[in-house]
Amino acid sequence: MTKTLEVVLKRVIEDVPVAADFEVVERAAPTTAPAGQLLVRVLYLSLDPYLGSRLRGRHMGEPRPAPGETLPGSAVAEVIASGHPDFAPGDHVIGEAGWAQVGLMDAKFARKVDPSLGVSNHLGVLGMPGLTAWAGVTQLAKVGAGDVFTVDAAAGSVGGTAGQIARILGAKAVGIAGGADKVAQVVERYGFDAAVDYRNEGWVDELKGLTDGGPTVHFENVGLPILNPVFGLLKTYGRVVICGLSAHYHADGPPPQFGLGPIVGKRAAVMGLVVYDFYPRWNEWVKTAEPWLKEGRLVQVEDLGEGLESAPAQFERLMKGANTGKTLVKVGG
Amino acid sequence: MTKTLEVVLKRVIEDVPVAADFEVVERAAPTTAPAGQLLVRVLYLSLDPYLGSRLRGRHMGEPRPAPGETLPGSAVAEVIASGHPDFAPGDHVIGEAGWAQVGLMDAKFARKVDPSLGVSNHLGVLGMPGLTAWAGVTQLAKVGAGDVFTVDAAAGSVGGTAGQIARILGAKAVGIAGGADKVAQVVERYGFDAAVDYRNEGWVDELKGLTDGGPTVHFENVGLPILNPVFGLLKTYGRVVICGLSAHYHADGPPPQFGLGPIVGKRAAVMGLVVYDFYPRWNEWVKTAEPWLKEGRLVQVEDLGEGLESAPAQFERLMKGANTGKTLVKVGG
Repeated sequence: MTKTLEVVLKRVIEDVPVAADFEVVERAAPTTAPAGQLLVRVLYLSLDPYLGSRLRGRHMGEPRPAPGETLPGSAVAEVIASGHPDFAPGDHVIGEAGWAQVGLMDAKFARKVDPSLGVSNHLGVLGMPGLTAWAGVTQLAKVGAGDVFTVDAAAGSVGGTAGQIARILGAKAVGIAGGADKVAQVVERYGFDAAVDYRNEGWVDELKGLTDGGPTVHFENVGLPILNPVFGLLKTYGRVVICGLSAHYHADGPPPQFGLGPIVGKRAAVMGLVVYDFYPRWNEWVKTAEPWLKEGRLVQVEDLGEGLESAPAQFERLMKGANTGKTLVKVGG
Repeated sequence: MTKTLEVVLKRVIEDVPVAADFEVVERAAPTTAPAGQLLVRVLYLSLDPYLGSRLRGRHMGEPRPAPGETLPGSAVAEVIASGHPDFAPGDHVIGEAGWAQVGLMDAKFARKVDPSLGVSNHLGVLGMPGLTAWAGVTQLAKVGAGDVFTVDAAAGSVGGTAGQIARILGAKAVGIAGGADKVAQVVERYGFDAAVDYRNEGWVDELKGLTDGGPTVHFENVGLPILNPVFGLLKTYGRVVICGLSAHYHADGPPPQFGLGPIVGKRAAVMGLVVYDFYPRWNEWVKTAEPWLKEGRLVQVEDLGEGLESAPAQFERLMKGANTGKTLVKVGG
C-alpha cells in the first residue's frame, strides 16, 4: 500500500495558528482516480493568509476544517491517474489537493498549466495573486505611462506583482512595506522605483517625496492605517483599487469606513476588486505575462519550505508576516 | 439718473434664510462699463442652494455677504456697454451681476451664450446644473444602453437633467424625489421611466422593483439617507457618482462615511464629481444638448418668479425644498 504524508490540525484553535497546532501524519494514499477526480502528486503547495481565519471558523461561507482532516490548499501537481477525459497522466494541473504528498483533485476545479513557465509561478505570479494584481492594475485602474503607482503589502505576491505590472506599463511604482528587509526586497527583487517602510515615523512625507507629491493610482491591500494617509496624498482624479483589507479581517470594532467628502474633494474613483470575477480571463493574464517572465521583467519572489514537513513552520511564518514573497512548500520534485 | 432695484440682506443671519430676511432697495444704477467690466441688464437670475450656507458664513472659501451688500448670483444678461473687446452691446452673457436689474459683470468670468437656445436654459439645463449632470452621466459613469440609472433630488435641475441624458443615451432612468408632486414632475415633465417618493415607507422595495432588482448606475445628490439603501440594491460592478451631499451640508455630527467592505462586495466604482473641472468643456455640452433641446428630448422645468421683487419669496421656496425644477427669477423682458 502506498503511503502519503498529510498535515492536519491537532486541535480546534481559536487564536492565530502556530506551527505547534499542526501535525504531520502518514496515511494510505489513494491509488485510483474516481470519475470526475484526478489522482495527483503534489509538487508545490500554496499557503495563503485566508486559511488563518478559516481554521478559526471566521471565513465566511467556507467550512472550518476539523482536527484530523486534511487541510485545504491550492497546489500545482502532476496527474498520476485521471478520472476525467480532459486530463491525462503527466499533465500539470493547479487545483485543491490538500496539504498532502498524494491526493485527489476535483477535475471540475482543476486547470491545466504549462510547466515550462516555471512550475511554482502558477501559484504566485501566474496564479491567483498575479491574476488579482493584473485585474486591479489593468482592468480597474487602467494604469499607463505617466501614472505614479503605490501599493502596500508590496513585498507580498499581489503587491509585488502589481508594482511590476505597473512599471512594465510605464508607471513609476513605489511600494509600501513593513521592515527594512521587505523594503529592500521590493526595490532589489521586484525592481520598484522606490519603497518606504510604514513602520518609520515620517513615512508619509517620504512617500510624498518619492511620488512627486502623491500617487495617481493606489492599490490597497491592508486597510485604513495605510489608505487614510495615502489618500491624503492622492492626486486629483486619482484611482484607488480596494483589493484587500487585511488590517480589518481579524479586528473586532466597526467595519472600516471611508469619508465621502474626500472622495469628492479628490475627484477620486474608488473601486472594489474581487478576483473571482476574473477567473474566466486567467489565460489572458498568463498569455500577457509569458513574454515578461521570459524576458525577466516579471519575477516571483518565494518564501519556500522544503518538504511537506516544513508546512507548519512555513504557515507560522506567514501568519507572523515574517515571509518575504509568496509562501510555498516544495512537496515533490 | 437711472435707477435699479437690488435685493440685499436686512440683517446678519444664522439660520436658514426666509423671505423676511431680505429687502428690495432702489439704487443708482451704474451707467458705464469700466475696463474689464460689462454693464448689463439682467434677464434671468439663478437662485442656488449653496447661497443658503454662504449667507450664514458656512460656505468654504467664499465671503459672507454683509447686510446691505448686493447678493451674489448667476444671471443671464444683455450687455448694455462693454469694457472688454470680446463683448459688445446686445450680446447675451452668463456671469455674476448680483440680485439686481442692472449691474456690472466681470468680463473675465462672463461667457457668451446663444439666446436662440432659450435664454433661461443657460442657467439650468445648459448651465452649471446641466454641465454637472452631463459630466457625471457621460464622463464619469459613462452611461449607455442597458444601464439602469437612478438619481435622487430627481425633480431638481441636476437630477432631472441627469436622468434625461441617461435616457437619451439608452438607459432606463428611475428618479428618487420627495413628495407626490415631485414624483409626478419627474415622470411627466422630465420623462423618466419611473420615480419613487422616498417619503413613502417601502420606497426601497418599490425602487428595487422598478430597477429590475437594482441600478447599474446611481447618481448621488443627497447623501447617506438615500445612498445607503440604494447601494444595497446596486448591481455588481455598479458605478456611483457622488455629486452632492446636501443632507450633510447643514448637519452637525461627523462627516458622512461609507463602508469599504460593501464597495469591494459590490465591485463598485465610487467616483467624486466636481463640476468646476468641466468648465473648459462647457461648449462641448452645449453642442451636445442643442439638438436634444430642439427635438424636445431635453427639457427644463422652471420654478419661476416674476420680477426681481419675487426673489426673496422664491429663495425661501428653494430653501424649503418647495421648488419644482430650476429656481429662477425673471428680472428683465
